[in-house]
Amino acid sequence: MQQYFIQKKNSDLVVGEYVKLSHEDSHHLLNVMRGQNGQTVQIVCNGQHFLANLVDTVEGYAVLKVFEKSSYDANQIELPVQVTIACGLSKNEKIEMIVQKATECGMAYFQPLSLTRDVVKWDSKKAQQKQNRLQKIAHSAAEQSKRALVPEILSIKTLKELLDSSLKYQHKWLAYEEIAKQGNHHYFANLLSQTEMGEEILFVFGSEGGLSEKEVAAFKAAGFKLCSLGPRILRAETAPIYALSAISYALEINFQEENHGTK
Amino acid sequence: MQQYFIQKKNSDLVVGEYVKLSHEDSHHLLNVMRGQNGQTVQIVCNGQHFLANLVDTVEGYAVLKVFEKSSYDANQIELPVQVTIACGLSKNEKIEMIVQKATECGMAYFQPLSLTRDVVKWDSKKAQQKQNRLQKIAHSAAEQSKRALVPEILSIKTLKELLDSSLKYQHKWLAYEEIAKQGNHHYFANLLSQTEMGEEILFVFGSEGGLSEKEVAAFKAAGFKLCSLGPRILRAETAPIYALSAISYALEINFQEENHGTK
Repeated sequence: MQQYFIQKKNSDLVVGEYVKLSHEDSHHLLNVMRGQNGQTVQIVCNGQHFLANLVDTVEGYAVLKVFEKSSYDANQIELPVQVTIACGLSKNEKIEMIVQKATECGMAYFQPLSLTRDVVKWDSKKAQQKQNRLQKIAHSAAEQSKRALVPEILSIKTLKELLDSSLKYQHKWLAYEEIAKQGNHHYFANLLSQTEMGEEILFVFGSEGGLSEKEVAAFKAAGFKLCSLGPRILRAETAPIYALSAISYALEINFQEENHGTK
Repeated sequence: MQQYFIQKKNSDLVVGEYVKLSHEDSHHLLNVMRGQNGQTVQIVCNGQHFLANLVDTVEGYAVLKVFEKSSYDANQIELPVQVTIACGLSKNEKIEMIVQKATECGMAYFQPLSLTRDVVKWDSKKAQQKQNRLQKIAHSAAEQSKRALVPEILSIKTLKELLDSSLKYQHKWLAYEEIAKQGNHHYFANLLSQTEMGEEILFVFGSEGGLSEKEVAAFKAAGFKLCSLGPRILRAETAPIYALSAISYALEINFQEENHGTK
């Protein structure tokens, strides 16, 4: 069943309420999915899931009536840790792929990061446009993957700005392929084994250009832990997807197995 | 350092030998990388790594002289299990992305699979072209990710052909999102815990169109085990990447941690 997000800041959604989809979501439901009155869709508002019927179309906007609160639990859908993926600036199609796939894999925040070896730069005019475009991609990927939350795309930061703001994270990790060359692949598992439910992880990835030695030193000095993502060299856009998949496997799948004890 | 594969069927490469890169690899080294005589690259032949210098260019082909056998061990680079990724037919850009990223993540074979709900069909004329194109993508992704082997793209199979040929695999798994709806995410970890080094896994994924109930029943009847890939719905092109990342994490990263005992 198709899922759409509804923004409501001051109160939760209730059964019986009428809601209007956003312009993009209305277009998707009415034109792409050819939605007819009476059709049921899933609505998510403030992490709560509801069922709603399409009842009207007003000036191109889809109007829905909420008829049931769903038993879906956001905690069962969202990763048990909050992962911020911070990436150096890659070409549009690569950074957009990262945001789309990382959203499917459970990312909570995306932090564009300006690094010295980036192959592209965002000037201040473009930065807001790029951020908006990535936010739309995250929105639609979150609907498609049935997330309970839309990952937030943060404003671009320089390395210094990122390090200054990194105190709030319980865990700060840097993916660094030199660790792979030393064969120390277990570092990542060590780091994951030290996380607790609900904690915030800031996980940093270079762009195609990689990281300079100065940057790596600055991350180390700021308390970041370095880790590799296995023995093969991953492209800039593959590394965050590998990382989130591994986090999901470790904390949602293998964890469950231990609980079930059905090995 | 740039890596290229050399095909040699009847004997291994030896130090002192001269080798010629393929047409595509010569173009890459000479034109894309602007290689100069004397430049050192890594050569992989039959899973063995060597260092070689560019010494000449003959009719557009790069000629290299092998000067050192590298201490690189294929076993340290390749996944400890042989994973065949079998996928329903997706649009070109999606199936190409799967092959590229799955190569980075350690896939051994790619099996295109014709399923009833596929959004595209390969007619017999196109099938060979598509297979060749995917083989080139796997080749270049294997070089880029420093694999010891190039994953082989197999000829397209129908479901019946796949099931008939599936006896040789020790493990046959089907990614099926209905398992996710039941919350039984631990199935995947259970399956992985039953694998041994060197075993062959056939892991099947539907295309965007998904699997029909008849197909799922046929897989079950043929002894395939069903599993989900966590609680979020993944796109057709994301699921194999998630799966391989999780396999790598479980068998290369978390496994190492247990060995190191440095938790």
